[in-house]
Amino acid sequence: MTQKQPIQPRRGRGSRPNNRPINERPQKGTFGTNSTKNPKLRIIPLGGMEEVGKNMTLFEYGDDIVILDMGLKFPEEDQHGIDYIIPNISCLKGKEKNVRAVIFSHGHLDHIGASPILLSRLGYPTVVGRPMTLAMVKHRQEDYEPKSSSRLKAITIKSIADRFSFGAFHIRFFQVEHSIMDAVGVILETPAGSIIHPGDWTMERDSKTGKPLVDYRHLARVKRPSILMLESLGAVDVRKSATQDEMKKNLETLIRTAPGRIIIGTFASQIERIGWIIQAAETLGKKVALDGYSMKTNIEIASKLGYIKTKKGTLIKINQIEDYPENKTIIIATGAQGEGNAVLSRIITGNHKNVRLKKSDTVILSSSIIPGNEATIQKLKDELYRQSDNVIHGQIMDIHVSGHGGREDIKYILNTIKPDYFIPVYAYHYMLREAAMLARANGFSSDKILVLDNGQIAEFDGKQWHATDIKVDTSPVFVDGLGVGDVGSVVLKDRQVMAADGMVVVVVQVNTKTRKVMNNPDIITRGFIHIKTSEKLMTEIRNHVKKTTESILQKKMPKKSEDWGEIRGKLRDELGTFLFQETQREPMVLPVVLKV
Amino acid sequence: MTQKQPIQPRRGRGSRPNNRPINERPQKGTFGTNSTKNPKLRIIPLGGMEEVGKNMTLFEYGDDIVILDMGLKFPEEDQHGIDYIIPNISCLKGKEKNVRAVIFSHGHLDHIGASPILLSRLGYPTVVGRPMTLAMVKHRQEDYEPKSSSRLKAITIKSIADRFSFGAFHIRFFQVEHSIMDAVGVILETPAGSIIHPGDWTMERDSKTGKPLVDYRHLARVKRPSILMLESLGAVDVRKSATQDEMKKNLETLIRTAPGRIIIGTFASQIERIGWIIQAAETLGKKVALDGYSMKTNIEIASKLGYIKTKKGTLIKINQIEDYPENKTIIIATGAQGEGNAVLSRIITGNHKNVRLKKSDTVILSSSIIPGNEATIQKLKDELYRQSDNVIHGQIMDIHVSGHGGREDIKYILNTIKPDYFIPVYAYHYMLREAAMLARANGFSSDKILVLDNGQIAEFDGKQWHATDIKVDTSPVFVDGLGVGDVGSVVLKDRQVMAADGMVVVVVQVNTKTRKVMNNPDIITRGFIHIKTSEKLMTEIRNHVKKTTESILQKKMPKKSEDWGEIRGKLRDELGTFLFQETQREPMVLPVVLKV
Repeated sequence: MTQKQPIQPRRGRGSRPNNRPINERPQKGTFGTNSTKNPKLRIIPLGGMEEVGKNMTLFEYGDDIVILDMGLKFPEEDQHGIDYIIPNISCLKGKEKNVRAVIFSHGHLDHIGASPILLSRLGYPTVVGRPMTLAMVKHRQEDYEPKSSSRLKAITIKSIADRFSFGAFHIRFFQVEHSIMDAVGVILETPAGSIIHPGDWTMERDSKTGKPLVDYRHLARVKRPSILMLESLGAVDVRKSATQDEMKKNLETLIRTAPGRIIIGTFASQIERIGWIIQAAETLGKKVALDGYSMKTNIEIASKLGYIKTKKGTLIKINQIEDYPENKTIIIATGAQGEGNAVLSRIITGNHKNVRLKKSDTVILSSSIIPGNEATIQKLKDELYRQSDNVIHGQIMDIHVSGHGGREDIKYILNTIKPDYFIPVYAYHYMLREAAMLARANGFSSDKILVLDNGQIAEFDGKQWHATDIKVDTSPVFVDGLGVGDVGSVVLKDRQVMAADGMVVVVVQVNTKTRKVMNNPDIITRGFIHIKTSEKLMTEIRNHVKKTTESILQKKMPKKSEDWGEIRGKLRDELGTFLFQETQREPMVLPVVLKV
Repeated sequence: MTQKQPIQPRRGRGSRPNNRPINERPQKGTFGTNSTKNPKLRIIPLGGMEEVGKNMTLFEYGDDIVILDMGLKFPEEDQHGIDYIIPNISCLKGKEKNVRAVIFSHGHLDHIGASPILLSRLGYPTVVGRPMTLAMVKHRQEDYEPKSSSRLKAITIKSIADRFSFGAFHIRFFQVEHSIMDAVGVILETPAGSIIHPGDWTMERDSKTGKPLVDYRHLARVKRPSILMLESLGAVDVRKSATQDEMKKNLETLIRTAPGRIIIGTFASQIERIGWIIQAAETLGKKVALDGYSMKTNIEIASKLGYIKTKKGTLIKINQIEDYPENKTIIIATGAQGEGNAVLSRIITGNHKNVRLKKSDTVILSSSIIPGNEATIQKLKDELYRQSDNVIHGQIMDIHVSGHGGREDIKYILNTIKPDYFIPVYAYHYMLREAAMLARANGFSSDKILVLDNGQIAEFDGKQWHATDIKVDTSPVFVDGLGVGDVGSVVLKDRQVMAADGMVVVVVQVNTKTRKVMNNPDIITRGFIHIKTSEKLMTEIRNHVKKTTESILQKKMPKKSEDWGEIRGKLRDELGTFLFQETQREPMVLPVVLKV
């Protein structure tokens, strides 16, 4: 068996950890003015290229700007302590008043999650979305700052046929399928051409005929030239996945035949599926308890809007679960990714107030594995299998379908819409490339396909679309606690160093007259060695620090305070070298020198 | 799109991070003596249950102990700074002299990696393996401590028909297939019955007939009762994977038709495949440069043993790569998982001495994705697609096959060998459970199947095998730099706290007479805030510490040194609360109080 090796092998002496050597090219550049006399149409992806999450795209024509989506991204393994990452909008500085509208394609966090922060920074421009989406944006705003949602200026898309004008942009919409209600595709018509952007999309097909259920042919008739910006997360997905119908049939059979209680773990964002499970349970005369803050909130929002209709009594509270026969109850819970504080984890660790797992329970994980979560999901599965005899997950049965179109679907869309230009978006870079290759293989010429980087400006010069060399700053903006953007690469690197080998603070009191160290130096260390069993090393460190300090001071007694910085630097290097020799570890070393 | 959410959400005030609430049950227990008059046969898995890696199994009969494998495991995401993890052998304390032999099934690190440390601790018992395996064990020993391999007492399995006796154990071997040469299955015959253990295995089948190429029927004829301990990593693997032949054909076509240079990324452990690629290159008149320490070493070992035969001139050095026409050169390199310091990463970041990627290069990733590495592999792919127009990986073409048997293979083995007892091993717990279910579905009765935990002793009482309630200590032993086992949960938790929110050390000088703080407190902080832009907060912290210290001292002036610990504790709590209010971050707070 080949197993996971540490991504960060032991570093050479003195180097700093650097887990992400890739993609760290400078991405600065000016946005530039856009002539109003001879306006250009520009597309600027602030996120959604290279990474998944923090999706956000600017469209500019003359001095009109329309924004699509304001998503957030969750941190990577080495971005310690970061809550989430939002798009960098520094390129909009001075152009805030040009933003005519922010359109949200749907209510998932990677499309609306940054909205409370970014809308506030832009002075609350008009936001546009369908009812569910706007309800989610509003909820997110309240979550971020209670009672702040009154600041939102919202326009609701009441009908898919609604049209709006924002400056030079004429906005229309079209139906798409995704795992949340009210997902919508957007058409931005401008004098220079039309942009078609389905947001996130998948293609449900008739189980028998294989024909798509939604008709996209009308998109071939938009004003030319047309640019299709297509979410391409499924660009390497060749598997023939189960249809919604097959998944529903599997889930329905499980719910109907389970010998006892049923616990279903899924994403809170799978609102359509949760709604459908509640419906199925109702039909089978079972009660459903939802558990998990985001899940309850989402279903509440969907219910208020009438998107989920239940008879009174179908939904029960989690603390009522024992009031009904086991084979009449279903719990739908968050935590299918093994997240530490989510419901499923609390159940299996015995920390849930109302629910203990029983051998007779049927546990269903109806979710995909999100890259990076494999290890925690494996631990979750291990423990579920320990506590229950009936664990069902995607490796066993088709109980989850992706919310994103695969290769065949991408091909179908391209061949149906036949856009003049193709820009794959909202996926990792290699998927964008694969989507581009797919387009070429289906008759698109290379000069009609644009693969953009985050921040790279694409422009229509009246004749032809082209990717410019100009890149606006899209360096990540980290949100950590109350801080937005204050944690940068320095703080993160320090966290990485301390995570790897801990830290050692030495406090040395120096008698400036005798040039001697007074008392024993204080050593404060965490995450480096086990202090209680390292008495000997601790004594050696104290002696080493004392000796080194005195030897340095004998040679040169600093006069100015800058010189003391030099002393500290020498002490740090000497002690670092000593500690590496003794332990082959490289803790962060921080000397404090007090003059007495 | 649903994206990765942080596994560790923001914690409640005062709590410590705990990413791994699962599986942390106490696993202590005594090994116990084994009567020599009325000896029992015991199986004690020290690793290989619940996790992948650190595979190691003890077999005891009377006072004879035979060990199979001594593997290592690489750390998990939250085990910061750990190099690797080895099995805990504390249960062998006092029984070291009973260890008659250590058998290694094959030379991969998860089967031999802990050998230098554990063999030394056991006083170098006899080691047994086929030539390639022993060469790898020896190399590992030298790598750990130069010139120490002379301490090894090795018995080479020269022929698959070799037999050895170690006390009551009679050892025989059988042929298995795996991704490294000289993998071997082991039969341990004892008066109480026979254990059949293939180590890691896969089942190659004839492309046309689907029939296995290796015959296992003879294993049905071992002395009864027989226990099959079967590596079950493929227990949820339902996909019909490509055969070796298909993979080879795909690779051969790629190598033959590539327009320019070829760069193949794979695991250094895939020695068979690397050997085969070299052969294919030779046939096509191409030169091969190997790059990566472990890869070069492994191929060197295999070549010395005659397992890889090349004509002079086929293998070239990486710095000779420019001496040949591009379409005549192949580079085989490590780093297909995106590991920061491995060859592929160095190439794409421009840090490789001899190789820069060109658009015309063909890059082939011939490796599986190891769970947990998804994010780095995606970044690797992104960058490869940027720099080369021809990137081939497993999502595009079958250019990797697993070294582990899948569900169909497990079924076939069970039905062919028909053991009296079945113990699935060397996989995650949920896979062990799935393998057990598979066995039940194929006619095994439940009482003939044992799913063990790490450390849990299984015993044959003369009539029946059963899993006892006794668990020996298998808590992980961490290797970090020169330290083996000194980094424990306390040090790791401190690393996690500092990784998440950094640390703040405050040094306060107190005049014990006036009970006043002298000078301004020194604040040393890293990984918490960006110091340069947080002048205001730093001043507030200084003032807060001063005020708090004086207020504490006014109430009570400590006399004994223990009391100063109490003062420090109060100061820590006060400052921690203050910092959380100000930032919603929870750095590690460490006060130092100096009396003047």
